Amino acid sequence: MIVLGVDPGSRRIGYGVIEQGARPRLLGAGLVPVTAGKDAPALVELRKNLLAIIEQHQPDLVAVEKLFFTKNRTTGIAVGQARGVIIECVEQRSIPIAELTPNEVKQGVTGSGNADKRAVAKMVQLIVDCGNLKLIDDATDAIAIALVAAQRARTGN
Amino acid sequence: MIVLGVDPGSRRIGYGVIEQGARPRLLGAGLVPVTAGKDAPALVELRKNLLAIIEQHQPDLVAVEKLFFTKNRTTGIAVGQARGVIIECVEQRSIPIAELTPNEVKQGVTGSGNADKRAVAKMVQLIVDCGNLKLIDDATDAIAIALVAAQRARTGN
Repeated sequence: MIVLGVDPGSRRIGYGVIEQGARPRLLGAGLVPVTAGKDAPALVELRKNLLAIIEQHQPDLVAVEKLFFTKNRTTGIAVGQARGVIIECVEQRSIPIAELTPNEVKQGVTGSGNADKRAVAKMVQLIVDCGNLKLIDDATDAIAIALVAAQRARTGN
Repeated sequence: MIVLGVDPGSRRIGYGVIEQGARPRLLGAGLVPVTAGKDAPALVELRKNLLAIIEQHQPDLVAVEKLFFTKNRTTGIAVGQARGVIIECVEQRSIPIAELTPNEVKQGVTGSGNADKRAVAKMVQLIVDCGNLKLIDDATDAIAIALVAAQRARTGN
């Protein structure tokens, strides 16, 4: 099973693609390319380039982090808008969507729902054996989301 | 000039289409049809049906209300997601987008930024001469958004 994890941000949308097996294998990771500085053209780029990533990797499941608002409401709106575009284009391609809270992702990867970013990144690198790759945070988070969704899909939880 | 106004909600997305002239003429108004109960299929329906409305009316400008979060953050996320899909599909069709705050809309239609819903609805019915139509609130708001955006586009404000 191939799982695409997506970490929605206002401009930086991380993604990670894994293949579930005896050992999860990393097929790709990075930022969905978005160059526009303004909301509207950025959303168009996001949809187009996420569809291209889906086309390339043909995931069986797409996992997206659930949104919680922080104190910064303006950022929250932008992230909500990006998330709407992500969900729409995955559903439009008829691919099942898994939604996970940040705590579920941390818990699933490290065993603790309160793990910090560094602990999550370390475990992700161990699990997919990509210690030699220089991954940015957004991509590491997206791989973590994909890993936990794959695990849940396999165990039925 | 034909202007499509859109009032983004979590499920109920109002729209109104006007033609700017000596007197604004109402070409269409209602809710963008969305029947799905779940977020993901509802966003797919929203995009598909909004594109159909754009296809039918060929607007020169699409006006969308700016989002402000109320106390209900869960609704805020759903509205943000819907707004992302709306903005993306309008931009993808290369139609200029105007964004107006609720206060700008009230001010533009009634002369007061603090006008209540009833005052806005009354002025909308007078301006587009649709007193005989039974319009739901969401559609009336969308017509108001379109009227103010058309006025601004004409006067360059």
